[in-house]
Amino acid sequence: MSEVRPGTFMAAEIAEQPQVLERLLRDGWPEIRQIAVAIRRRAPRYVVLAARGTSDHAALYAKYLIETVLGLPAALAAPSTITAYRARPALRDVLYVGVSQSGGSPDLVTCLDVARQCGATTLAVTNTAMSPLAAVAEFHLDILAGPERAIAATKTYTAELLTLYLLVEALRDADPAAAGSVIDATAQAVAAVEPVQAAAGRLVGADRFVVTGRGFGYPTALEGALKLMETCYVAAHGFSAADLMHGPVAIVERRTPVIVVSPGGMSTDLVRPVFERLTELGADRTLIGGGCAAPDAMVPLPAVAEELSPVVSIVPLQLLALELARARGVDPDHPRGLSKVTQTF
Amino acid sequence: MSEVRPGTFMAAEIAEQPQVLERLLRDGWPEIRQIAVAIRRRAPRYVVLAARGTSDHAALYAKYLIETVLGLPAALAAPSTITAYRARPALRDVLYVGVSQSGGSPDLVTCLDVARQCGATTLAVTNTAMSPLAAVAEFHLDILAGPERAIAATKTYTAELLTLYLLVEALRDADPAAAGSVIDATAQAVAAVEPVQAAAGRLVGADRFVVTGRGFGYPTALEGALKLMETCYVAAHGFSAADLMHGPVAIVERRTPVIVVSPGGMSTDLVRPVFERLTELGADRTLIGGGCAAPDAMVPLPAVAEELSPVVSIVPLQLLALELARARGVDPDHPRGLSKVTQTF
Repeated sequence: MSEVRPGTFMAAEIAEQPQVLERLLRDGWPEIRQIAVAIRRRAPRYVVLAARGTSDHAALYAKYLIETVLGLPAALAAPSTITAYRARPALRDVLYVGVSQSGGSPDLVTCLDVARQCGATTLAVTNTAMSPLAAVAEFHLDILAGPERAIAATKTYTAELLTLYLLVEALRDADPAAAGSVIDATAQAVAAVEPVQAAAGRLVGADRFVVTGRGFGYPTALEGALKLMETCYVAAHGFSAADLMHGPVAIVERRTPVIVVSPGGMSTDLVRPVFERLTELGADRTLIGGGCAAPDAMVPLPAVAEELSPVVSIVPLQLLALELARARGVDPDHPRGLSKVTQTF
Repeated sequence: MSEVRPGTFMAAEIAEQPQVLERLLRDGWPEIRQIAVAIRRRAPRYVVLAARGTSDHAALYAKYLIETVLGLPAALAAPSTITAYRARPALRDVLYVGVSQSGGSPDLVTCLDVARQCGATTLAVTNTAMSPLAAVAEFHLDILAGPERAIAATKTYTAELLTLYLLVEALRDADPAAAGSVIDATAQAVAAVEPVQAAAGRLVGADRFVVTGRGFGYPTALEGALKLMETCYVAAHGFSAADLMHGPVAIVERRTPVIVVSPGGMSTDLVRPVFERLTELGADRTLIGGGCAAPDAMVPLPAVAEELSPVVSIVPLQLLALELARARGVDPDHPRGLSKVTQTF
């Protein structure tokens, strides 16, 4: 093992993302459209998304899409209400979606099983077609990302995002053509190593980070913070920029490292006043994207429609986590205390 | 100002909680019951809760109650989908609840206004009857906590919790008698200063905390972490104990301070394996409650039904935040960078 460079798998899987997205768009779409037709016949009025960790950030993205594009209220599940407190909610007219790379987390399997018994239309979104989650759900979508060997999820996250985007497009009977733009944009983001290295060089000594964004920038803030925690063991705290102002901003002082996700559109309009407040507080502001004045460091993002921007905006944070982990002598392919399938009940 | 002891307001408001809860149970119940009768006539099938900061933790508690006691799926709102992305979701059969101490946050006012136009039954839960949020909602519940002068919310949080508990009880046409037990239990928790001081003495030098719980212990973990951030400016990260195991546990190393919320019942059964994992990792474990072996410090909790436990289990964390702030020379009545009404749009 010793001659292998730390983070070899993670680096390869980050780089692989454009091909994964292209395959999904080409080979995944027919099945997504077919399942969407079946789901539309049920005319769901409400969506519940159950997930953990990285997949929960993909679920949060789906919540934004479902509410803004489909006009349906969407909830993130609290799995213990079903698994531990034995809630048997009335789920007629509900689409209940489990999102999990491995499809192996026992609590999510129980949630989908119970949801199906309680009248929901159930869908599993996984990278493992032969998984318990796929087996228990009425419908299954394979994100087609191929085996992921690094513990820190990268390509399975963006493949989950694009799968959920395509599902929402299919549910409104739209064409998937707009999604084609993410392939090039992701390739550009993967190649933009230099600004990430410059940002990483400034942050290598930090052990407390705040990562913030709003709207479609919010899932990226949470997932970026998780990547930093998993690979660098730093206290990285992801906040919606609105929630940050409702209390936690008190922890921001001069030179506190704050990473601001600003992918354009409304996400940038929403985060700009918070960025300005961070400037007043003297925070060290790394900007992912643009549209905010005079950041301390900046990693530009390739332009893409705002609804698709989370697929692209996470890439610099994946690269940053990889760079910082290597600089700290940690192997992000094998973070301490973690395994690929987490058993929670 | 200089002769007033730091945290005078916060201390008084923590101590006032038993009386606030008693008043709410006595004077608030008739109106809660009346509004519940009106809401039941609408037969809502889904609930959406919109809130920020401390009130968002009360909303999370309500989600657990609504799902486990009423058997209805409940969502925490992402306000920007309505305020920024102009979603106009189909909200027939939805009860849409805004929770806000001040009733003054513009984004929540917009959410309730739009939700009402989109067919939802709307309810504002506030401490300010003459607020914009109360005015825009069809129904309003006053949490009757009286003026709160410390910036860090304490009595308005527990009053929100009890109001939401009583609402759920009224919605299932139950008697509020069980809630009477929280008054004595909260008084006991308020009086138990010594174990909190002992725990605080051990933690005074720490600037990174993990706070964790599961089930009915989870809202307390999030709110306890927020209190520590607001009053002590430490990086306190609240996690569901399940989510903690899906990645963030990587940041826990030998002597990392972890506060574990274990109020009994299923919450304790769920958190115990995580506590044991933290023990293996050599974390410094402060236990709020009981039921886990050999903690480094412990603040016992008075016994109360698990569904009511969040009202009680937050008290030691309020006291801990107050103690640590004073030990650090910070005035928790006036945290830097915060105001009582946060303007987010």
